Amino acid sequence: MTIRIVVWGENVHERRNPAVADIYPEGMHAQIARLLVSDSDLSVTTATLQEPENGLSAPRLAQTDVLVWWGHVAHEEVEDGTVERIAVRVWEGMGLIVLHSGHFSKIFKRLMGTPCSLQWREAGERERIWVVNRGHPIAEGLPPHFVLENEEMYGEPFAVPEPLETIFISWFQGGEVFRSGVTYRRGGGNIFYFRPGHETYPTYHDPIVGQVLRNAARWAHSSTPPLKDVLEGPNVPIEKALEPISDRGPKVHAPGERGYR
Amino acid sequence: MTIRIVVWGENVHERRNPAVADIYPEGMHAQIARLLVSDSDLSVTTATLQEPENGLSAPRLAQTDVLVWWGHVAHEEVEDGTVERIAVRVWEGMGLIVLHSGHFSKIFKRLMGTPCSLQWREAGERERIWVVNRGHPIAEGLPPHFVLENEEMYGEPFAVPEPLETIFISWFQGGEVFRSGVTYRRGGGNIFYFRPGHETYPTYHDPIVGQVLRNAARWAHSSTPPLKDVLEGPNVPIEKALEPISDRGPKVHAPGERGYR
Amino acid sequence: MTIRIVVWGENVHERRNPAVADIYPEGMHAQIARLLVSDSDLSVTTATLQEPENGLSAPRLAQTDVLVWWGHVAHEEVEDGTVERIAVRVWEGMGLIVLHSGHFSKIFKRLMGTPCSLQWREAGERERIWVVNRGHPIAEGLPPHFVLENEEMYGEPFAVPEPLETIFISWFQGGEVFRSGVTYRRGGGNIFYFRPGHETYPTYHDPIVGQVLRNAARWAHSSTPPLKDVLEGPNVPIEKALEPISDRGPKVHAPGERGYR
Amino acid sequence: MTIRIVVWGENVHERRNPAVADIYPEGMHAQIARLLVSDSDLSVTTATLQEPENGLSAPRLAQTDVLVWWGHVAHEEVEDGTVERIAVRVWEGMGLIVLHSGHFSKIFKRLMGTPCSLQWREAGERERIWVVNRGHPIAEGLPPHFVLENEEMYGEPFAVPEPLETIFISWFQGGEVFRSGVTYRRGGGNIFYFRPGHETYPTYHDPIVGQVLRNAARWAHSSTPPLKDVLEGPNVPIEKALEPISDRGPKVHAPGERGYR
Repeated sequence: MTIRIVVWGENVHERRNPAVADIYPEGMHAQIARLLVSDSDLSVTTATLQEPENGLSAPRLAQTDVLVWWGHVAHEEVEDGTVERIAVRVWEGMGLIVLHSGHFSKIFKRLMGTPCSLQWREAGERERIWVVNRGHPIAEGLPPHFVLENEEMYGEPFAVPEPLETIFISWFQGGEVFRSGVTYRRGGGNIFYFRPGHETYPTYHDPIVGQVLRNAARWAHSSTPPLKDVLEGPNVPIEKALEPISDRGPKVHAPGERGYR
Repeated sequence: MTIRIVVWGENVHERRNPAVADIYPEGMHAQIARLLVSDSDLSVTTATLQEPENGLSAPRLAQTDVLVWWGHVAHEEVEDGTVERIAVRVWEGMGLIVLHSGHFSKIFKRLMGTPCSLQWREAGERERIWVVNRGHPIAEGLPPHFVLENEEMYGEPFAVPEPLETIFISWFQGGEVFRSGVTYRRGGGNIFYFRPGHETYPTYHDPIVGQVLRNAARWAHSSTPPLKDVLEGPNVPIEKALEPISDRGPKVHAPGERGYR
Repeated sequence: MTIRIVVWGENVHERRNPAVADIYPEGMHAQIARLLVSDSDLSVTTATLQEPENGLSAPRLAQTDVLVWWGHVAHEEVEDGTVERIAVRVWEGMGLIVLHSGHFSKIFKRLMGTPCSLQWREAGERERIWVVNRGHPIAEGLPPHFVLENEEMYGEPFAVPEPLETIFISWFQGGEVFRSGVTYRRGGGNIFYFRPGHETYPTYHDPIVGQVLRNAARWAHSSTPPLKDVLEGPNVPIEKALEPISDRGPKVHAPGERGYR
Repeated sequence: MTIRIVVWGENVHERRNPAVADIYPEGMHAQIARLLVSDSDLSVTTATLQEPENGLSAPRLAQTDVLVWWGHVAHEEVEDGTVERIAVRVWEGMGLIVLHSGHFSKIFKRLMGTPCSLQWREAGERERIWVVNRGHPIAEGLPPHFVLENEEMYGEPFAVPEPLETIFISWFQGGEVFRSGVTYRRGGGNIFYFRPGHETYPTYHDPIVGQVLRNAARWAHSSTPPLKDVLEGPNVPIEKALEPISDRGPKVHAPGERGYR
């Protein structure tokens, strides 16, 4: 079974900022995709903001098992229609991995229902990531902790819902902590937020980060067919009730009516 | 300490449908408010869709500790600005109790980040509500189970996030089940969804339902001051780091910059 | 990759009660094992109460990826040493599937830390099991609901911790409901409790029940190596701290001491 | 309404170790009790290991709303009967606050069902505690973070179940992180684990720690009457079923039988 992954990149910093371009000459999305490729089960392509429909047309999303999202400076430029198409696909069962500054992306805020705010500092300081849930598939093969010598600091409080499970917690040199790896399920879709990945540092060249992303893609993938009816609110007619019941009391709905939304 | 509750009613069915008007002659919101009033700690007012700003102006919301929401046929008529004002107040710490058909309200879907879909049948059938979490404050003083002889059926799957805690599960005469009382926290705000309350039945005249609503209002209330900064994503300058750090590596942000959103 | 499953059966009712022996002539464990066998990835053997060390010696558990547990009348006869060996293996990462009356087994109560009590009735009544979490791997390939025409009733409240996720909820003909499929993680081990399976009914001949068990075994399996150190509480000497620190303040521990337990 | 709190202290270190006795001349339990006392709603007494029945007889526990637990060197000396009495009272609805080295206490491990292991270092290093769930009642009135200049380090992984909610995360000077404030519900009882409080440092003289403990006691208190039947597994006779059912199929239980445990 092959898992079809699309790495979406905003693709702005790497074209404007030489420091970023030096680290990611082909674009961050290209390097993230390279980290994800393995010899067997992961099939990886990329998409960018600048493409028609932000590179994520309905047919393409229908062929996507796991979407990986990196965005920062251009969150507002992502079309609202794109955001809704992604949300529906997540509810149907597509996995979603949101990276770093994607915490403020439209799609992450849409699916969390919270502000997703945090505090931050761009100082190239040391981040040490601790595995707090060693038995989770996303932690498979990882050391007890690993260090990114230069990273942006993200500090608590992180305004997200209580996670389904917390996988990683970061220690920062400047004194902060952060829940750096957290999971959610929304509808049929598995969601993983992974904190590291500031554009001015070589985070996506780190092999342990690569292991995290490959683990996360496999975990996020669902082998259940898409839940195509997840938006519906079907009426069950009285005569089709599973147990025999009679019709009692007044009504606001006409027979066969769709209901109010 | 007095808890300031606003019961919001859509106020449409009861003016159009005689069956509803018979049961709720002063409006459903008025009867729900009556259920909530107790002799001491709950101060209850009402608001309706038809009022300016849907009855929920920013100053009014600022004076509201817990908002109770009943809507059905006119979800789409609620202004988007109203929905966002409510969402921000919930993140700041206002409690929110969503009733019955409010599962498809804009505000509930906004805060859940999921479709909130379910199956339904308007047959006036028997609903038996089981308390599955007896120690929870919302269950205080309730019997092990209680019956609403005539209710609309809502059946699983209910497309909501895994609840923080599940308090009630309903048995329906026609063969379905439903998680009828579920809790969430979003930002500083406590959210409780309570299933019963179809407009053509006298559910909000039931004393046990009243007990549930009063318990829920007390549980949802937060005595923490509003988290006014929950939308912010503050920068922590290097020179104000809690532990001394030096500035390392390239940057995309200028000193004092607000960051990207 | 082959998942090594051991089906543990109490093996008492089927030797004493002709009604049970008629349905499960080779023992319940043998029939449960048959349900689990598939042509590829599941390798299934059985163990019973009557064997030395209850059939679950340390070497055998070390070779077990997922343990399936059915017990009822002889919970107290399971040796305490067996229970502790299983608990440690679960914490290390072995999956555990607890069936039906196993809710009162020593091992389930040990891992839950709660009484695991419920109400019950042996009337051969209809049970309808609803899938409430359709995207979960345990629900893969299942219909929206399925019926066991004759089952024992288990009713809420079920005194277990709030589940990690709730997968199934049952409707009973006599008016009760029950959270029939719930998941937990304890240490590195995934735990699934599945309600159906009273010994006087042919539940373990049902193909949908078989699908649930096979899904659950695959979900419960962890490909992470056993967390052999999960019982340890290691001291980190000051000179080996990840960040340089100095020794400050008084002590109760001597250098190199193991700590108190 | 007065909340009746018992602070249980092991009362060993402070009688043996002069450094501890200097900081806590009347015993740690006495100082913790002092922190909890407020002018209105908290009534606080103490109990110690050395008293008959470890100071926690059944009648005394029956009069206790919230139990606060500090132990370290003498976990094994706590009688098993004491542990079971406490567990039952928690399931009935008594709150439990477990402090610091109590992570390895019999009662905490009993209620968690996990090893509760962690890594540690006694270096008097700096601990900075971040509030990650600002709207939770336990965080009421606290600053965004606070520092204990000298504390023992506890580091992840902390082998506990995924918390109901995570309230605090600690940053340690030596490079570790820890989930320092986590909540659970077990049966009707609320449980809060709070990390700080090594015996050789003046942690329980810190006013913010006092605020945490008072908040936690109020949060842990349940106003629901004790769930006296939480250990029972009652049979519901067929003739008393809530919906009329007939008796079908073979049986293993005789009428009126208690069931197997």
